[in-house]
Amino acid sequence: MSELSQDQIWMQRAIALAQLGQYSTRPNPNVGCVLVKDGKQVGAGFHPKAGQPHAEVFAMREAGDLAQGATAYVTLEPCAHFGRTPPCAKGLVEAGVAKVVVACPDPNPLVAGKGVQILKDAGIEVEVGICEAEAHQLNLGFLKAMATGQPYVRLKVASSLDGRTAMASGESKWITGSEARLDVQHWRAISGVVITGIETVLADDCQLNVRQLSADIDLSTVVQPKRLVLDRQGRLPLTAKLCEQPETLMVMGPYRQELADLGVEQIEVQSLTDLISLLAQQYQIYDVLIEAGATLSTAFLQEKLVDELINYVAPTFLGASARAMFNAEFSVMAEQLRFKLKHVAQLGQDVRLSLIPESV
Amino acid sequence: MSELSQDQIWMQRAIALAQLGQYSTRPNPNVGCVLVKDGKQVGAGFHPKAGQPHAEVFAMREAGDLAQGATAYVTLEPCAHFGRTPPCAKGLVEAGVAKVVVACPDPNPLVAGKGVQILKDAGIEVEVGICEAEAHQLNLGFLKAMATGQPYVRLKVASSLDGRTAMASGESKWITGSEARLDVQHWRAISGVVITGIETVLADDCQLNVRQLSADIDLSTVVQPKRLVLDRQGRLPLTAKLCEQPETLMVMGPYRQELADLGVEQIEVQSLTDLISLLAQQYQIYDVLIEAGATLSTAFLQEKLVDELINYVAPTFLGASARAMFNAEFSVMAEQLRFKLKHVAQLGQDVRLSLIPESV
Repeated sequence: MSELSQDQIWMQRAIALAQLGQYSTRPNPNVGCVLVKDGKQVGAGFHPKAGQPHAEVFAMREAGDLAQGATAYVTLEPCAHFGRTPPCAKGLVEAGVAKVVVACPDPNPLVAGKGVQILKDAGIEVEVGICEAEAHQLNLGFLKAMATGQPYVRLKVASSLDGRTAMASGESKWITGSEARLDVQHWRAISGVVITGIETVLADDCQLNVRQLSADIDLSTVVQPKRLVLDRQGRLPLTAKLCEQPETLMVMGPYRQELADLGVEQIEVQSLTDLISLLAQQYQIYDVLIEAGATLSTAFLQEKLVDELINYVAPTFLGASARAMFNAEFSVMAEQLRFKLKHVAQLGQDVRLSLIPESV
Repeated sequence: MSELSQDQIWMQRAIALAQLGQYSTRPNPNVGCVLVKDGKQVGAGFHPKAGQPHAEVFAMREAGDLAQGATAYVTLEPCAHFGRTPPCAKGLVEAGVAKVVVACPDPNPLVAGKGVQILKDAGIEVEVGICEAEAHQLNLGFLKAMATGQPYVRLKVASSLDGRTAMASGESKWITGSEARLDVQHWRAISGVVITGIETVLADDCQLNVRQLSADIDLSTVVQPKRLVLDRQGRLPLTAKLCEQPETLMVMGPYRQELADLGVEQIEVQSLTDLISLLAQQYQIYDVLIEAGATLSTAFLQEKLVDELINYVAPTFLGASARAMFNAEFSVMAEQLRFKLKHVAQLGQDVRLSLIPESV
């Protein structure tokens, strides 16, 4: 690894700060900011929650007069528009910073380069792109949605070495260990919605909410993901555990008055492609997690809707009559669905592979 | 990680030396030795090849008179018997070392504790067990065979995420990338034999020899593994590439004069369990690598003959009609074949999982 520049070191601190908001800022992005003067940090902050001040505001408050002549490191281009808070670019100008270093340009059409322009117009030196790839990972969903209108879709599958998820009978509980199962909670907690199929609900009576994270996280600050059931025949029982939190439940299926009475958000039956777009555009859901059976998982993959496959591999063979994790059938190698390996992690006795489809 | 003691640091150097013989000492074990006096290395060596001197001899030659009063670090208990070379324990006594630190006691019944006894009888301080677990890994086959009469059996399987090895048609070439394929050569090169089935030979016309290792290895020093074909019906064609090196070819099948004429070693048809024992006891083959199709691989696993599964996982889905890597059928989870995860490595776009069956 090559040595890091001072700019990179400060930006990595800003990225670490941004991460502190990873479970709580939705639908807003995670942003961190560090103010540095004479080689010393004089202010720092991160965006904690929609409706609360942006990262730059916290950093400037801490720095006070020391912001004058300082360099600001911000993981995302400072905003130029009045939203729930006044524009941060103007705030940085007023605080008198000498230089602003930005990791990611903001792809939001309401901002796009305008923040940088405000700074430059005020005579402030601006540098964009420091640690951009790392900072981009903070907001895969937000950045993709702002640029394309589509959310970032993660598909989670837990499987055996021989690519099975359950016995033919459906018996399946816990092929992975507790560390892998805890890890799944993280992916739920950074997602705006967890999608599953009605068959999974009927078989497992799952909740799909966030119930446990690492010990230093206060669960009450976590924005719980919506849970969306694809239920084309309207079979979801009102006694399902999912219905115990109707405020975070969504159902795609034929309209049912009893669900409306519970306060459940209902979505018209439509294609997976249309559904995914709708989630970003109508519901500001930018990170989608799919936790479903093989049929639905395979459909999302085959329709090229998956941005990342999160595959937990359990060290076991379930045998050739067990249920396959992926049930499309190919006859020649040219049809295979190949991935790029993004990351490998060992979680107890299991392995987590993060994979990017080659067609994406 | 806790800090290493001086003894551990020197023993790790001895282990690193032993590893230099990993491709060339068969059937002898890999052994390294370091002689240390006043905190400085005064001699070092490793066993390079059967018939050549043992590690201790090289170290003592280098140390000369400096061996007097030195501490010897040896990865395996010094031998006490006259084999092709005089006993090393006596050599250490004659050289006047003050102390001997040993990683692994020798489980060979010809040696077992006798080396240590010779040293102690001569008034030399002896410590056994420093870095034993690491040193044990150097000689998994040798140590298991000396202790139990059975070889250490590794099963190599390359599979897709969905647990497939080839399309239904048999089309399969290169689901893993070049780094994983090069890695397989290492496992062949530390093995006394590579076992395959006749179906694999007929389909792939494979050679199963060592053709490439990392750049710093001189291939001419590598002891090539035997290649053993299980061929119960005597179908191996004399035109198979395997027959081009008859001196390293073994066939288990009905006796065939034409194979005998080529100089091929033939083994009577017998059970896999008996075959494995025979390899250790009659042929001094202590490390067995299986590279076979699903039927034979599954049989070795089901008969509990596998000590370690080396599973290369390629980032691809081959689909539900492709060939399964493991073709036993289980109906309940209790039948599953579970493993302990020993090691995970990323090799290019592929992942290598090293797994120990829980039943072993």
